[in-house]
Amino acid sequence: MAADKTQKLKARVARGFIDRNAAEIDATRAMVETIRQVYELYGFEPVETPFVEYTDALGKFLPDQDRPNEGVFSLQDDDEQWLSLRYDLTAPLARYVAENFETLPKPYRSYRVGYVFRNEKPGPGRFRQFMQFDADTVGAASVAADAEICMMAADTMERLGIPRGSYVVKVNNRKVLDGVLEAIGLGGEANAGRRLNVLRAIDKLDKFGPEGVRLLLGAGRLDESGAFTKGAELDEAAIATVLTYVDTAGTGGADTIEALRRLVAGQATGLAGVEELAEIDRLAKAAGYGEDRIRIEPSVVRGLEYYTGPVYEVELGFEVKDEGGRPVRFGSVGGGGRYDGLVARFRGEPTPATGFSVGVSRLLDALTVLGRVKTEGARGPVVVCVMDRERLAEYQAMAGELRAAGIRAEVYLGGSGMKAQLKYADRRQAPIAIIQGSDEAARGEVQLKDLDLGARMAQEIADNTQWREARVAQRVVPRHDLVNAVRQMLVSIGVV
Amino acid sequence: MAADKTQKLKARVARGFIDRNAAEIDATRAMVETIRQVYELYGFEPVETPFVEYTDALGKFLPDQDRPNEGVFSLQDDDEQWLSLRYDLTAPLARYVAENFETLPKPYRSYRVGYVFRNEKPGPGRFRQFMQFDADTVGAASVAADAEICMMAADTMERLGIPRGSYVVKVNNRKVLDGVLEAIGLGGEANAGRRLNVLRAIDKLDKFGPEGVRLLLGAGRLDESGAFTKGAELDEAAIATVLTYVDTAGTGGADTIEALRRLVAGQATGLAGVEELAEIDRLAKAAGYGEDRIRIEPSVVRGLEYYTGPVYEVELGFEVKDEGGRPVRFGSVGGGGRYDGLVARFRGEPTPATGFSVGVSRLLDALTVLGRVKTEGARGPVVVCVMDRERLAEYQAMAGELRAAGIRAEVYLGGSGMKAQLKYADRRQAPIAIIQGSDEAARGEVQLKDLDLGARMAQEIADNTQWREARVAQRVVPRHDLVNAVRQMLVSIGVV
Repeated sequence: MAADKTQKLKARVARGFIDRNAAEIDATRAMVETIRQVYELYGFEPVETPFVEYTDALGKFLPDQDRPNEGVFSLQDDDEQWLSLRYDLTAPLARYVAENFETLPKPYRSYRVGYVFRNEKPGPGRFRQFMQFDADTVGAASVAADAEICMMAADTMERLGIPRGSYVVKVNNRKVLDGVLEAIGLGGEANAGRRLNVLRAIDKLDKFGPEGVRLLLGAGRLDESGAFTKGAELDEAAIATVLTYVDTAGTGGADTIEALRRLVAGQATGLAGVEELAEIDRLAKAAGYGEDRIRIEPSVVRGLEYYTGPVYEVELGFEVKDEGGRPVRFGSVGGGGRYDGLVARFRGEPTPATGFSVGVSRLLDALTVLGRVKTEGARGPVVVCVMDRERLAEYQAMAGELRAAGIRAEVYLGGSGMKAQLKYADRRQAPIAIIQGSDEAARGEVQLKDLDLGARMAQEIADNTQWREARVAQRVVPRHDLVNAVRQMLVSIGVV
Repeated sequence: MAADKTQKLKARVARGFIDRNAAEIDATRAMVETIRQVYELYGFEPVETPFVEYTDALGKFLPDQDRPNEGVFSLQDDDEQWLSLRYDLTAPLARYVAENFETLPKPYRSYRVGYVFRNEKPGPGRFRQFMQFDADTVGAASVAADAEICMMAADTMERLGIPRGSYVVKVNNRKVLDGVLEAIGLGGEANAGRRLNVLRAIDKLDKFGPEGVRLLLGAGRLDESGAFTKGAELDEAAIATVLTYVDTAGTGGADTIEALRRLVAGQATGLAGVEELAEIDRLAKAAGYGEDRIRIEPSVVRGLEYYTGPVYEVELGFEVKDEGGRPVRFGSVGGGGRYDGLVARFRGEPTPATGFSVGVSRLLDALTVLGRVKTEGARGPVVVCVMDRERLAEYQAMAGELRAAGIRAEVYLGGSGMKAQLKYADRRQAPIAIIQGSDEAARGEVQLKDLDLGARMAQEIADNTQWREARVAQRVVPRHDLVNAVRQMLVSIGVV
């Protein structure tokens, strides 16, 4: 490979994808570990499916696709079958459970974390690869399973350091929504598509407000960029009923449930949904989860088509600034619901299932806003400077001794002089540089530079001469005392 | 979604992909964490690139493709650019470093772990998605960087519990190989393709033996399945030279280096390569790594085209049985080398780089053979049985109290009776089942079943009546003493 300036490739990350640095990786690992511990406490166990599935196994359940029938990265295998990158962790779980149904314990409680992919038009803060952390219970028809997942979601938020009052798990039920839709004449298989359009319009309440929802329920909505979203084309009376449902039912607790009962009176499906909500409300309260943590909330829809019963969403209530500097609520960091039909696609018989998905990057953003995440990477290693290339083996021995004592250490491996080496140590946030020139070596000594203190002093001491004379940030120790002296200095800096 | 038996989809994992269970996930996580700690000790920091890259950024460096010009999963984006799933972690790192060159500390030491994808014909034990764990140093021209990575690889093996003597890091140098190739008349740009064929033939020494290599260096080799691999078409004299090189140079240490010096005498590139090997040998030995851990070994090639200097491979020497029950050496679990041209593709100027990749699944297999991996999943949670559905909230309260004390616990959420619940607890490897019927509830008591002891006793006690009378595996405790009693029982079982 000749390096030819005239033919060189442009190095660029693919459109809609991003690289992640040490600080973000460390913070994500810590957060994922905490979530994992909560899920394990609840008896969930890990399972992992591959990134690639047969396209037909995933099905087409994505809402709001930029491009009709797309949203998924797909390619044809050489045996002509279509393969897709998973777009969520739920559809692959349904395939897994169906394929291994006989050998799994039932109910089957599992969790998984990993990247999913959307073949969408990328935009600011909108990526084509993002991480989800899911927990699901398959084989439990009782809404106690839904209630438990809502409690686990609430526990997770608190364990991550989100204070009570700053989050709420909102719960609704697709059956109640179906009851309302039936009331406005959208029952039956023939209206399935229109029902989904109405649900997606309701789902936009937080984003566009009641007026936006009204437009999406009617003729349609023109957004600021000039793009037009076709509406559900309901008549005025139907629109009024839907808006009343969204608006007046949200009064809280027993009142909400009573209001919902009245709204769906006489409809079996709707009433069954209200009773399920009442049971979730009762179980949550009995377990000590008040309405500040788990709340019945009729405006929650969740965009995905496959939900069949309770749906839930975790919202963070504290404010952040939007792009225009206006305060907005942080919003949703995860959600889920019951999908009794998804495993049934394979098994040919209904298989109850419910699950919850955390948007990992979104939640990490929230924790960062709350100051719960170290935004800087870990401190760098101790850097052993190379003063004399002939004595590289001796420098390696120093690094080796430090590592054997559990201290991060490395020998500088570049080709540059002292100034570049200290600049390197600074960039790596190294706490200490170790220096041994031929004079120190002859005396059996080694010099330790406290780089933190050095940096602080450099700010205070303007005069270069004075700086060279201020040796307090340096310490000369016997070579055989290297490890102890480094450890002492790390303790005094506060690194260990 | 109506569940229609006549139309149901077949649930099947995609061809060449696999699901992974809790035991494998837990073992992988523990292993990855250990490797990460070693790499961190050496001053490497994490970085992560996306799963998808522009196809041209990855380049085509894969050896042994089943299908010419393929080996990679690719698809065209809607802006007509080609995207590919990464096939290794090195090509994306080269893109990342080139894109962020100015802001990175140099030398740049980084590590990353993740899945890579090969669009190959799947076979037994050969998957299209597998995990790699890489460490790379970019910007260090000195072979001290290569030596350091070899030492880190050796440390990693020992930290994972592979005893000294059971692994060895074998080191060679592409420049030496190039010297030999020049000696047989394969120098120059025009012979690049043939050189690669010869290298790949040498690389097959472990797999096919000297006779197989001879065939691959000559006309070609017919394998057992009847597939023919075209050879490098060297003449007899050239084949003899190559085989002599592979064979006679492998005598160990200083002798090997002397033998190599004679073989490439008079060739500048070859001699430079030998001197680099001598320096790596010297540094390793000075740091206390003997030839039982790091050894110069001329047969090491590494199949990838992009290597330009030292190449290394970690081999495990203990024996396992092959498919036919014959003992074979376990073989390679990772390797790497210097790729000074890969970043240059983007930057237009040479950028030294060297790195090492661990095959995570392969290494996990090795640890399993050595008995260093728990092959069973963690113990299941304590299961609270549901004796009376009206009292679900009380059962939830019990599980909640246990979790608050840090004990994994769950309420049985299925719809079945006592027998099914105990079978469920058994399948989950639950240590304890908690039972509270209405009688116990009335007395303010709760029953704890030691499921381990119960299972052992069930094997010993054949008579069912006698079994019901043997109550030693059960304990009745006051309800308010639940958490303490469970903790005591877990301690006695050895779970905590």
